[in-house]
Amino acid sequence: MMANAAFRNLNVNEGRLMKDIHHTAQRGKGAVWGSAATETGMARLSLSLEDKLVRDWFVETARSLSCNVHFDAMGNIFAVRSGRNDGPATFIGSHLDTQPSGGRYDGILGVLAGLEVLRVLEDNKVETAFPIGVVNWTKGRPISNINGVIWRVGWLNSSRQGPILEAENKRIGIVEGVQAYRWHTITVRGRECHTGATTFPYRSDALLAAARMISHSHVFASEFSSLASTGVLTLKHGSTNTVPGEVTFSIDIRSSSDSQLMQLEEKLKQDFETIAKDELLPGMTGKGVKGRGCSMEWQLVSSSTATTFDKNCIRCITDSAESAAAEAGIAAEDFMKRGMISGAGHDSVYTSKRCPTAMIFILCKDGISHSPGEYSSSQECATGAQVLLGSVLRFGELRAVEASSGP
Amino acid sequence: MMANAAFRNLNVNEGRLMKDIHHTAQRGKGAVWGSAATETGMARLSLSLEDKLVRDWFVETARSLSCNVHFDAMGNIFAVRSGRNDGPATFIGSHLDTQPSGGRYDGILGVLAGLEVLRVLEDNKVETAFPIGVVNWTKGRPISNINGVIWRVGWLNSSRQGPILEAENKRIGIVEGVQAYRWHTITVRGRECHTGATTFPYRSDALLAAARMISHSHVFASEFSSLASTGVLTLKHGSTNTVPGEVTFSIDIRSSSDSQLMQLEEKLKQDFETIAKDELLPGMTGKGVKGRGCSMEWQLVSSSTATTFDKNCIRCITDSAESAAAEAGIAAEDFMKRGMISGAGHDSVYTSKRCPTAMIFILCKDGISHSPGEYSSSQECATGAQVLLGSVLRFGELRAVEASSGP
Repeated sequence: MMANAAFRNLNVNEGRLMKDIHHTAQRGKGAVWGSAATETGMARLSLSLEDKLVRDWFVETARSLSCNVHFDAMGNIFAVRSGRNDGPATFIGSHLDTQPSGGRYDGILGVLAGLEVLRVLEDNKVETAFPIGVVNWTKGRPISNINGVIWRVGWLNSSRQGPILEAENKRIGIVEGVQAYRWHTITVRGRECHTGATTFPYRSDALLAAARMISHSHVFASEFSSLASTGVLTLKHGSTNTVPGEVTFSIDIRSSSDSQLMQLEEKLKQDFETIAKDELLPGMTGKGVKGRGCSMEWQLVSSSTATTFDKNCIRCITDSAESAAAEAGIAAEDFMKRGMISGAGHDSVYTSKRCPTAMIFILCKDGISHSPGEYSSSQECATGAQVLLGSVLRFGELRAVEASSGP
Repeated sequence: MMANAAFRNLNVNEGRLMKDIHHTAQRGKGAVWGSAATETGMARLSLSLEDKLVRDWFVETARSLSCNVHFDAMGNIFAVRSGRNDGPATFIGSHLDTQPSGGRYDGILGVLAGLEVLRVLEDNKVETAFPIGVVNWTKGRPISNINGVIWRVGWLNSSRQGPILEAENKRIGIVEGVQAYRWHTITVRGRECHTGATTFPYRSDALLAAARMISHSHVFASEFSSLASTGVLTLKHGSTNTVPGEVTFSIDIRSSSDSQLMQLEEKLKQDFETIAKDELLPGMTGKGVKGRGCSMEWQLVSSSTATTFDKNCIRCITDSAESAAAEAGIAAEDFMKRGMISGAGHDSVYTSKRCPTAMIFILCKDGISHSPGEYSSSQECATGAQVLLGSVLRFGELRAVEASSGP
């Protein structure tokens, strides 16, 4: 295939990519986890001043790479480099902002690898078949409507994934879909009372009930080969000598199967009701002195059904990874893991409802993301960017072929 | 006994006491729990503006009742009405300020019942053997040094207690001592990670560990006939899709026996370490997929050994309650419960280290205090104040007898 030959001499610049990462990471530094200057996490909250400064840098850099930049009402930024043909761009993207306690790769690498792809195209004066763009999503904001989005827009999202690649000693993960998830806020209402003056039988301890629910959700999600996690928990008031009267917590449940997820949720709803009443769950032998029980309610906050990515996008990534493996002298099956299911939602779940989408995973230390200490070596970041470059170029060629053979 | 005859015609005024309670409760209103204007809780935080306004009212009222008022550096207020003899006052007292989510009786009744006692003395031109005072403690502040405190100062603290009186259908509790307690702050450190991307075996979930510790502390305190409670729990950062990396929570353990309390604490320290490592506790059958474990540390914040109150104070309260029972035509044993051990610390634990101290409990609904909905009927409040009046007068007579028979 002629296109492949043309791609052969295009290589991302590892040092340049890392320079972008560590340069922009100076804005919104988070927790320090190591002794090197680059060993800090990130706390670059969405639309904060630090985020704005990095967004400004992104826009300026993209413009210097011959991009037209536009924005939407949600603050999403779209930088587009023209191609041989008009038409919707093939976008690369993620988000430059982070969790309050994020790291310097999750999200950020997806955008900066996109910029590195643009730099390679500029340096080599490559004219792509269709426009190529980089998008910086405003995190947590819903996807906006751009150009009356059509299926032709390919979203190739460089991202990272849990510990699977590391455990299997592979470097690139080809993601075929994303787990379903459902987020709930649960409120447990008991009654405040003095910790010393009120013996167990007279208590309605909202936090004890919540603690039992959290422990139980882990047991049950384990049985269902699913995930359950609580990331937020808030006590109304709170003092050491007051039994909490109201506790609110999040529960995030995930499964690769929509039906299994709903079964898990139904089971948890049933069991949490039993726990709230301070009654024994089936099979439970002891839980201490029984109290008076609490009331509780669930509120669905967000949900997403299981996602399946676009077959053409997946094929382009696979071809690109095979080529990268060959260049590195590694057998393709030792280099990449096919058919991965992402646990995390990512922006690509939303984009996949509008246009062809896929994701690339790279190797990261201990599979940790959303943590100050998350880490991918410069080699792995560059490998991901290289596969991304090849994927996007291949996808453009595919579009060109389809356009020329069209009606 | 002549003194008893003299006390017979002295009666507290139920309406006047309740008027003071509901009048001052307008400052620092808390959560509404019923439809009546007086059915709200209190949120009159220590040294807040609302607290200051009530303190001003207290000082003004005490001065109008012939009291000298003085303050110490902690903001504790001492109002003293002179007696026949000079000498340290016999104090009645508690605190007018409340928890963030307190009610209108706990603490407040102890001070306002003291004022009601002073009103009765003033109205009837009673000259007591020694000075009588009312103290308003600044809550949570350590006891100050007043007048080189000596054993002669009797602290008679009107307070309320859990559900025991209600369950046994008695109206006055004679408190002989207070439970030991120890407060710790526990920090669990795991590692933040993405809830979707990180499967259970790779997690160090600090909140899951904390939840298991809280559940377990209840089970174990139940086995030890002790109490364990968590009233404060804080997550570092916190978002729905991030597994918490650090959780801090309080644990408040109490027992009527110092040695039993230490045994409970040792056992919890041992078991929490096992839970932190995500290992099975003895006898535990399943807890879901094992993770990587967390580290943890304990910090002792506050502690108090078991307290035994003064025998003379207890005798005066008992005599006064017997007299009140007789006036009400109720058998003494149906009216009062002797030998109660208070679960809550109260200021009287601190005063008892300096001078003779005792406490009176009154009947309250469901034994609930430290809660917006705590409630004692006006009759029960007045009964407590009446027993308090008789106790304080008797204690003064006892001091006079001792003084005259002294060396």
